[in-house]
Amino acid sequence: MNARIGVADTTFARVDMAKFAIDVLKRYHGNIEIIRYTVPGIKDLPVAVKKLLEEKGCDIAMVLGMPGPNPLDKQSAQVASSGLVTVQLMTNKHVIEVFVHEDEAKSDNELYKIAKDRAEKHAQNLLKLLFKPEELTRDAGMGKRQGFPDAGPIRL
Amino acid sequence: MNARIGVADTTFARVDMAKFAIDVLKRYHGNIEIIRYTVPGIKDLPVAVKKLLEEKGCDIAMVLGMPGPNPLDKQSAQVASSGLVTVQLMTNKHVIEVFVHEDEAKSDNELYKIAKDRAEKHAQNLLKLLFKPEELTRDAGMGKRQGFPDAGPIRL
Amino acid sequence: MNARIGVADTTFARVDMAKFAIDVLKRYHGNIEIIRYTVPGIKDLPVAVKKLLEEKGCDIAMVLGMPGPNPLDKQSAQVASSGLVTVQLMTNKHVIEVFVHEDEAKSDNELYKIAKDRAEKHAQNLLKLLFKPEELTRDAGMGKRQGFPDAGPIRL
Amino acid sequence: MNARIGVADTTFARVDMAKFAIDVLKRYHGNIEIIRYTVPGIKDLPVAVKKLLEEKGCDIAMVLGMPGPNPLDKQSAQVASSGLVTVQLMTNKHVIEVFVHEDEAKSDNELYKIAKDRAEKHAQNLLKLLFKPEELTRDAGMGKRQGFPDAGPIRL
Amino acid sequence: MNARIGVADTTFARVDMAKFAIDVLKRYHGNIEIIRYTVPGIKDLPVAVKKLLEEKGCDIAMVLGMPGPNPLDKQSAQVASSGLVTVQLMTNKHVIEVFVHEDEAKSDNELYKIAKDRAEKHAQNLLKLLFKPEELTRDAGMGKRQGFPDAGPIRL
Repeated sequence: MNARIGVADTTFARVDMAKFAIDVLKRYHGNIEIIRYTVPGIKDLPVAVKKLLEEKGCDIAMVLGMPGPNPLDKQSAQVASSGLVTVQLMTNKHVIEVFVHEDEAKSDNELYKIAKDRAEKHAQNLLKLLFKPEELTRDAGMGKRQGFPDAGPIRL
Repeated sequence: MNARIGVADTTFARVDMAKFAIDVLKRYHGNIEIIRYTVPGIKDLPVAVKKLLEEKGCDIAMVLGMPGPNPLDKQSAQVASSGLVTVQLMTNKHVIEVFVHEDEAKSDNELYKIAKDRAEKHAQNLLKLLFKPEELTRDAGMGKRQGFPDAGPIRL
Repeated sequence: MNARIGVADTTFARVDMAKFAIDVLKRYHGNIEIIRYTVPGIKDLPVAVKKLLEEKGCDIAMVLGMPGPNPLDKQSAQVASSGLVTVQLMTNKHVIEVFVHEDEAKSDNELYKIAKDRAEKHAQNLLKLLFKPEELTRDAGMGKRQGFPDAGPIRL
Repeated sequence: MNARIGVADTTFARVDMAKFAIDVLKRYHGNIEIIRYTVPGIKDLPVAVKKLLEEKGCDIAMVLGMPGPNPLDKQSAQVASSGLVTVQLMTNKHVIEVFVHEDEAKSDNELYKIAKDRAEKHAQNLLKLLFKPEELTRDAGMGKRQGFPDAGPIRL
Repeated sequence: MNARIGVADTTFARVDMAKFAIDVLKRYHGNIEIIRYTVPGIKDLPVAVKKLLEEKGCDIAMVLGMPGPNPLDKQSAQVASSGLVTVQLMTNKHVIEVFVHEDEAKSDNELYKIAKDRAEKHAQNLLKLLFKPEELTRDAGMGKRQGFPDAGPIRL
């Protein structure tokens, strides 16, 4: 039950989401080592996380970022997301992307809450991927959400 | 007539589509082994399915997901789809994508039916790719659809 | 003057375009072998054609598909096209993409004609790439079209 | 001062742009060899130019194409451009993209002039990349344009 | 505390942003070597920076460009950005992208100021990535901006 977990985040984000994620990871009763890596913006995340996985020996990673509300920000998020998928395919390791778009919320207060909730729930998802994958399968198709309440499953 | 089939799905989806697919696969009268892998969201699917194909020795796979209705969800679906194509090119194995977009239906009821039909028909497509490719060639250009009734061929 | 040519198409398309292409290829007075591979949809084409080029030893290939009229269909076409470019760069072999978008025509009748013309002309292009590249250079900048009449060159 | 230069173009384009480029390249007083390769459309250019660089031993290349005015044409241009960047990263060689979009001009006459000017200026850029990189650095941030008059630098 | 830093820029840009960046890099009290490489446009940057990292032995790089205001320019920027992410994943080295879009400002004067500020601040970020990564982690989630004043962190 040992694992080295990479956590990459940005100075661009307006909420220290990595802190929320790390708090969850640390509460796990296992032998976990966390390595944190902060970069300027989301497009710097793919290589940062690749270095965590390859050079620092992390088994899995999560990245946290907060793209802005403009079309160019959406384009940057797409470039970053594509790069993160490529990193996973190059390493055969999971990288959980925790992006909170500034226009998902109507106020700073709400944005903060979304960011906290999403970071925490995805930290739990990361632990399940590592240690309890059967819990994810139990929740397959259950409309789970991060940052918002679960949508829940459709029942006929 | 042996095959190991990977089935990857998400906790985000609101319908347990993998169950429908697996039911079809199990009805096949051959020596089939199914390995299921559930991840949080569709962007986690590419590496999940690559692990199924490479680390678990699957010969083919299908992935099932349910992207939301917003522009960001469409962008996520594009990132995921591109990654799934890359996985196939890295492994020379087929991965059938079964994505049902929430805005394809006007009600939960309809969405459920689309999801069930698409998952089942693509499970049949997977079996044809594996065991009866000549049946697909017989249907070439016939306007086959999954999730909806067939459009049918254009006849002059 | 020997060549093995791969032809990949889909059951989704509403016209059997591969038949038109193969008819042209067969009329060529050379030692040509054609291998056909039908898959469900356009996103299944990249790996199908890669298998034709790598596992079946094809020297060149063409793919034929008919994306639907909705934004999601355009997105699927982009994912498929990008994958087809990647296949070519991985194999150093040409893959001619013959996509006919349903919204290119105002009627089924017109769609059928576009599909037939485009498939036939691109089959001729494939033969030129293989056997008579100088004919393509002779037509450089001549506004050639497939599916529609040639636009022709701009003359001052 | 020897160099082998690849020039790839299309039959789709309505102007023989390669001719303009080759005229400029030939006026260079060095030992230059030019290899031309014509394909049907812009999405055929990435593998064409990769073959020029790898199989024909070209040191550098330029590609010339003329995407149409519709959204699908823009999508094709993006797929082609992405492929061209990938070719460069796979070979560590420059490929100068000379694309002229049909909707950049209001008349055939204007389109022709843009195409000629852009092809010629980028042929000069190619020669600078090969033989006089310091001339490019001298022009850094100077608002250079191809196909249109230079925008020029912003001066406070 | 030795480092070789690549700086790639374009003749298309209307401001000599590389100069601002290099001025910051040179003020650093360490043994730094800077190698500059100028290309015509932003889509030439990915291979330029890959050559700096691989052939010139740079440890890290920054690229500076100024995409135009039109949709095609945005598309070019996306192609370039994706290529820059790929370069980083191929080399496991950071490449800081400094793109200033012409429509970020309402006047030439403002555009110049954004370009200068962004180039300088990202040069500082590059130095932190190389020599003082702990300073970036200290600023994680602090809403740092380049080209504009910091947005600052959200505080509840």
